[in-house]
Amino acid sequence: MTKIAILGFGTVGSSVAKAVRILGIPGLEVSHIYNRDVARKRASAAAAHVGSDAIWTESIDDILHSDANIVAELVGGMDPAGSWIEAALKAGKSVVTANKQLIAYRGPELQKLAADNGVLLLHGAAVAGGVPVIPGILQGLQGDTITRISGILNGTCNYILSRMEAGDAYSDVLKDAQRLGYAEADPTADVGGFDARAKLCILARVAMHTELDPEQVATQTIADIDAVDFAYARELGCTIRQVSRAQAQGDGMYARVAPMLVPLQSPMAWSHGTQNMVVSTGAMGGDVVFSGHGAGGDATAVAVMSDLLAVAQGARCVSLPTVAKTVTGDSVAPHYLRFIVDDKPGIVSAISGALSKVGANIDSLLQRRGYPKHRLAFVVTTEPTLNSTIAQAIETIATLDCMLVRPLALEMLVVDDKDEETA
Amino acid sequence: MTKIAILGFGTVGSSVAKAVRILGIPGLEVSHIYNRDVARKRASAAAAHVGSDAIWTESIDDILHSDANIVAELVGGMDPAGSWIEAALKAGKSVVTANKQLIAYRGPELQKLAADNGVLLLHGAAVAGGVPVIPGILQGLQGDTITRISGILNGTCNYILSRMEAGDAYSDVLKDAQRLGYAEADPTADVGGFDARAKLCILARVAMHTELDPEQVATQTIADIDAVDFAYARELGCTIRQVSRAQAQGDGMYARVAPMLVPLQSPMAWSHGTQNMVVSTGAMGGDVVFSGHGAGGDATAVAVMSDLLAVAQGARCVSLPTVAKTVTGDSVAPHYLRFIVDDKPGIVSAISGALSKVGANIDSLLQRRGYPKHRLAFVVTTEPTLNSTIAQAIETIATLDCMLVRPLALEMLVVDDKDEETA
Repeated sequence: MTKIAILGFGTVGSSVAKAVRILGIPGLEVSHIYNRDVARKRASAAAAHVGSDAIWTESIDDILHSDANIVAELVGGMDPAGSWIEAALKAGKSVVTANKQLIAYRGPELQKLAADNGVLLLHGAAVAGGVPVIPGILQGLQGDTITRISGILNGTCNYILSRMEAGDAYSDVLKDAQRLGYAEADPTADVGGFDARAKLCILARVAMHTELDPEQVATQTIADIDAVDFAYARELGCTIRQVSRAQAQGDGMYARVAPMLVPLQSPMAWSHGTQNMVVSTGAMGGDVVFSGHGAGGDATAVAVMSDLLAVAQGARCVSLPTVAKTVTGDSVAPHYLRFIVDDKPGIVSAISGALSKVGANIDSLLQRRGYPKHRLAFVVTTEPTLNSTIAQAIETIATLDCMLVRPLALEMLVVDDKDEETA
Repeated sequence: MTKIAILGFGTVGSSVAKAVRILGIPGLEVSHIYNRDVARKRASAAAAHVGSDAIWTESIDDILHSDANIVAELVGGMDPAGSWIEAALKAGKSVVTANKQLIAYRGPELQKLAADNGVLLLHGAAVAGGVPVIPGILQGLQGDTITRISGILNGTCNYILSRMEAGDAYSDVLKDAQRLGYAEADPTADVGGFDARAKLCILARVAMHTELDPEQVATQTIADIDAVDFAYARELGCTIRQVSRAQAQGDGMYARVAPMLVPLQSPMAWSHGTQNMVVSTGAMGGDVVFSGHGAGGDATAVAVMSDLLAVAQGARCVSLPTVAKTVTGDSVAPHYLRFIVDDKPGIVSAISGALSKVGANIDSLLQRRGYPKHRLAFVVTTEPTLNSTIAQAIETIATLDCMLVRPLALEMLVVDDKDEETA
């Protein structure tokens, strides 16, 4: 008999209980549920998924001293989840978790603790919820040398940006996202890129055997994206997505989470709503795309439930050693620069002067008709240039009197998967 | 030390040797290579990937009596590959194979033989080459109840149809595919759907725990698709792909490989060239998409190499019991019917009469301008109707004097993944 203790009976926790009931695997049952204010949870409709023998408790010690074999940690956050997992592993219990922050910051240490105690720590739900990116990579792509991971790892940002692509305003969409439960009251973790950054670090470890410090991964908010950017992006054959990207670069690694221009023919442009997507680029196998529902109780529960089955059956994934690498957010790419100005003679000349001074070459200049002269939005794209070089030029340009808002600089992705010969 | 014997040093076999060399995992080496006319292989450039200690042989017994721990079977076909795998398993060697026909027809029996001998049989490369569909499902989606698998499982057909979508003629594209090595001299296995059918049966087993008899899975050739069908498909917001589909239906299962109309907004319309794609639909997790390079030596070698690592590390996937189910190719779907006629009064009336007689309702009638009256191509779409009912009507319609070619009937796919609320 494999007994599961669920820590946290919220959206995901109750979906996991439902999944255990629906699958009905003989010998696999939810035996314990920990939650604060547990009486309220026990009285909720979701409690119907749990057998009458299960023990409901507000005391974590009840779980740690129980006969449960597996702890499903679905509380989230660094603490106390981290110390609970430590205690569970030391008590000889395997752990399944959806906790991306904890795994991003403390994964290797906790994995070692699990191994030292002869138990398993699985975290398939920590990245992209119900999309089996982590198990797919761990079991099916370790035979390749993965050189780059690009992903749409935050469903909230993808929901906001794909709604904006369809014509809605950022502030309206954010309000809808909050109302629908896709975004927190304080949306900073999502829109600022901090949620995606944790997931990117986990993927870099799993796919590229590289340990990155999440704090060192550069982020850029999506809150500065305006409707006008989607109009100009479309003229460039692109849309805008929050992209998380890690790529081997010299001895270190480029890693960055930022809104970027994505070509419409790129898989990442297909991703709509709260969907997640990961594109893994391998030296031998080329681009592999995983996509699906990254968030929500039921989708996340699929990943947790799959890990619970894996632990119950003693399944194990391939594990290769990792190395720590330094991170840079700097890489050479074409850039999209958007200016909103009170139009006066000499602006373009000042901008091109600032770019030329740092050695950045202009590739195109776009000015759509219909914007008023006193609030004119136009765009410059550059030839491939270092992000830091562009940032230098932007500092200078931002000081021009005519700039009504701070200029926006976005990396432009290039489609470069080698396709087969077509004729 | 884990020693690998490669059976078949062709495109995939030599890529596997390359992958072993590139990854350079300590303790993992190619020790034996079997091939007919082995001297020629040993003299080839690809032999440089193999260490000088390796034994090259034309005798399968040399392999079976060797100290190799794992046999990588890359010969393909039912025989003698099947008896070699049996012998290897009985000799206590684990087996990694890319052999879709063998696994489709004899998978469970060979898995049992492996288990009885305490060794492993992995076949991640048998479906979709370098796209980790099998490991992703086995390790990451067993927690869901998968109700449907839809896939683009044959790169040759996808290459042909996506070239036709771009305006090329079937016969020209087939010739190119043969020249490029994507299609055999006799392309029947690919264009007729027999290759994809084997892969679909493997996916039904892995994802839906259902054993299907490949011979019972209905197929329809893509060779009857004409340029005019892409023009009409486009008017209907669709393109055409060879789709492999299996879906739980009552006590049995609907399974079919056929060219179908695919909505342009469906993931399957994104797939171009020789790419493969699998869309798995789960009761809890919704649609999950896997896509990438399904064929070619290097992509397939990624899957083989990942399985070799898995065996070397003793990795194991979740395994749930399967049940045999009866198969039908019959399901209710809207249909696309294309007629090429020598135009005379009364044709539409005769067609609609034949459809109405079997109870099929017409949804739309499309006739593009510019076709000559003596060779007029037009299209009727129907409301959702059983395939077998449509086939009955087609039998009647085909006998009309004015029909210049046999009418073409294609299933039309409907996009039905529930998306989140969008406002």
